[in-house]
Amino acid sequence: MAKQKEVSFLVVGGGIGGLTAALGIAETGRSVHVLEKARQFGEVGAGLQLGPNTTAILDRFGLMDEISKYAVFPKRLVLKDAITGEELSDLDLGSAFLEKYKHPYIVMHRADLHKVLFDACEVNPNITLLSNQKVKKVEDLGEKARVTLEDGTGYLAEAVIGADGLWSKTREMFSNDQPVCSRYVAYRGTVPMDEIVERGGTDVDDVLMWIGPYLHLVQYPVRSGKLYNQVIVFKSFRYKEGSDDWGTPDEIEEHFGECCEAVRHAVFSYISGQRRWPMYDRNPMENWSSGRVTLLGDAAHPMLQYLAQGGCQAIEDAAYLTNMLHKHGNNIEQAFLSYKQERFPRSSRVQLTARLWGEIIHANDNISILLRNELLKNRNSDDYSYVDWLYAKRY
Amino acid sequence: MAKQKEVSFLVVGGGIGGLTAALGIAETGRSVHVLEKARQFGEVGAGLQLGPNTTAILDRFGLMDEISKYAVFPKRLVLKDAITGEELSDLDLGSAFLEKYKHPYIVMHRADLHKVLFDACEVNPNITLLSNQKVKKVEDLGEKARVTLEDGTGYLAEAVIGADGLWSKTREMFSNDQPVCSRYVAYRGTVPMDEIVERGGTDVDDVLMWIGPYLHLVQYPVRSGKLYNQVIVFKSFRYKEGSDDWGTPDEIEEHFGECCEAVRHAVFSYISGQRRWPMYDRNPMENWSSGRVTLLGDAAHPMLQYLAQGGCQAIEDAAYLTNMLHKHGNNIEQAFLSYKQERFPRSSRVQLTARLWGEIIHANDNISILLRNELLKNRNSDDYSYVDWLYAKRY
Repeated sequence: MAKQKEVSFLVVGGGIGGLTAALGIAETGRSVHVLEKARQFGEVGAGLQLGPNTTAILDRFGLMDEISKYAVFPKRLVLKDAITGEELSDLDLGSAFLEKYKHPYIVMHRADLHKVLFDACEVNPNITLLSNQKVKKVEDLGEKARVTLEDGTGYLAEAVIGADGLWSKTREMFSNDQPVCSRYVAYRGTVPMDEIVERGGTDVDDVLMWIGPYLHLVQYPVRSGKLYNQVIVFKSFRYKEGSDDWGTPDEIEEHFGECCEAVRHAVFSYISGQRRWPMYDRNPMENWSSGRVTLLGDAAHPMLQYLAQGGCQAIEDAAYLTNMLHKHGNNIEQAFLSYKQERFPRSSRVQLTARLWGEIIHANDNISILLRNELLKNRNSDDYSYVDWLYAKRY
Repeated sequence: MAKQKEVSFLVVGGGIGGLTAALGIAETGRSVHVLEKARQFGEVGAGLQLGPNTTAILDRFGLMDEISKYAVFPKRLVLKDAITGEELSDLDLGSAFLEKYKHPYIVMHRADLHKVLFDACEVNPNITLLSNQKVKKVEDLGEKARVTLEDGTGYLAEAVIGADGLWSKTREMFSNDQPVCSRYVAYRGTVPMDEIVERGGTDVDDVLMWIGPYLHLVQYPVRSGKLYNQVIVFKSFRYKEGSDDWGTPDEIEEHFGECCEAVRHAVFSYISGQRRWPMYDRNPMENWSSGRVTLLGDAAHPMLQYLAQGGCQAIEDAAYLTNMLHKHGNNIEQAFLSYKQERFPRSSRVQLTARLWGEIIHANDNISILLRNELLKNRNSDDYSYVDWLYAKRY
């Protein structure tokens, strides 16, 4: 056997979930190693949205001052019909929202959030960040857990948290289930805000979601309002299993050609066909904790992004895991079990609701569209009843 | 040429629309003949619902006292999910409704309404009722109009109103369009109320509409509450053009077997498979008046019954036609044209909305059902905004 290092807590994956978990574990007085497979810690993707369920946690970890330097505090979450351009409903994120939830709704660049978390980890004496660590296998050994890298390096840890995302290696310890392909793909375009404003962009302070048959466009500002983040998502009708030759950029025109002018302008001016993001989730899986090993974030409950809760749920995981580690002291198995028991139903609900919401926003038959739009138009800006289950949660 | 009788106004069809029109024409001081093809005047079918847009007219014609002897004044219009049994929404037909619309919502047996109209026509010196008159052809002759019967009898009339229903002969003067088959069929069952109450029937004072995928059941009391009227409607998956061998009674079990207990009880205890009612409407047709000939009721705008407006719209036609005959005096062409110009947009809207409402109540995919039920559940009992366009109209 090659080198085997003994460590206390070990987090597999140095993304947003893994780093937040590391901060939480460190808060309980434990030493924690974070293994990142990439050469450098970092984040791919562009913007992310953080509801008050999450900003409350980031505040608790003392990160909101730093985050506020990069975040944008949008005034409204607006749903518009991508075909007609009509505004269907909006959710007030201003004073009424803040009064109700006490913590803000923010949007920011993923890289900015990651940097804040990374910096906080780096200066934390309990946290060791290790990059270029390609995990091959995770084993629960009863009193210990072992993580083996592709290069043969072994870590013998008191506990392992698999925060290694959609394609999690740690998850293989629990299941041989596979990601479920939604047949939807995303393309992104993040451009300087100056360019947007010069060309007459409006409502740039809002989170805009334009919804249409089999497609949507999301737009919001990031990086203190200096950048404008835009993502399109559409369903490919040319899906081929085991192939990447579907949802290719040439399908963008087919899907968005019939949209209203504002959407077409955004799509054809700013969206880049360079990087294709096929969208996956998985079915909920209950047994994600066993002995000294547990999962967190996308590794535990990967979800479609339609509720903008992927990062949020990972951060909720980290917060509740921290709570349980505080509560159960040295009984790590119990902490992990209690963590999973609380987090499984909630994260599953988010997974399944994201799928459902996807079907609603992407509705393609006239009756569904009519009913949906009517329902949305009946909703008041300060009616938080549909989102309360998500945003009112506090860990 | 065989016998040719000269008459003043001639109404083709002695159903609810034709008789109401005759009363209106008589009110303007004109003599009117009503030709009914059946051996006896009468009505097929069971119950009908009359909104305040219609009871206001029946009141104006002095018929509401007599009608009230047979009608039932339901407390609520209730929509329930036929599968789960859940109540989705109700519309208060009580004091709030009456205060708003000044006239009641009533339900009654079609035969009872027809009898009240028939009796009023019979005693009216301006009205002549003729049965066993099978119309073959209607012609506009400029200053006159001619109606030719199958037996060769001819009527030379000052004006002809074709109130001869879905399969109207008069309509052939305007169009060779055909009824559109919805592939839905209805079966009915009208049973003594005692039997319903004995067997534990509840909410028998309400109009209940149970809605489910490709099906619905309507239940309400008629004949002063002595009879309980029940109608099921479902879409046949065995439709064959030009055949009657679809939507047959053996399909009832397939459709209603998965419904909740209350619906199954109603369907399997009370609905009779003896008479099958395939459901037709037609596309809106604008040119239904020409010179001295016009159409009225189903002959002009046959509609699916999902808004319960077939009889109501025929009565609205009769009322507005009466108004125009009062207004335009001897200029019958102008009266008919003004009548059509007012009535075409409104009746077309009802036709098309009935189709749409049919698609909504018969929604069969999970998303549509979810959205519909959510929308319905959000509606308050005293929210008349969805029905106001129908019920607030006064002629």
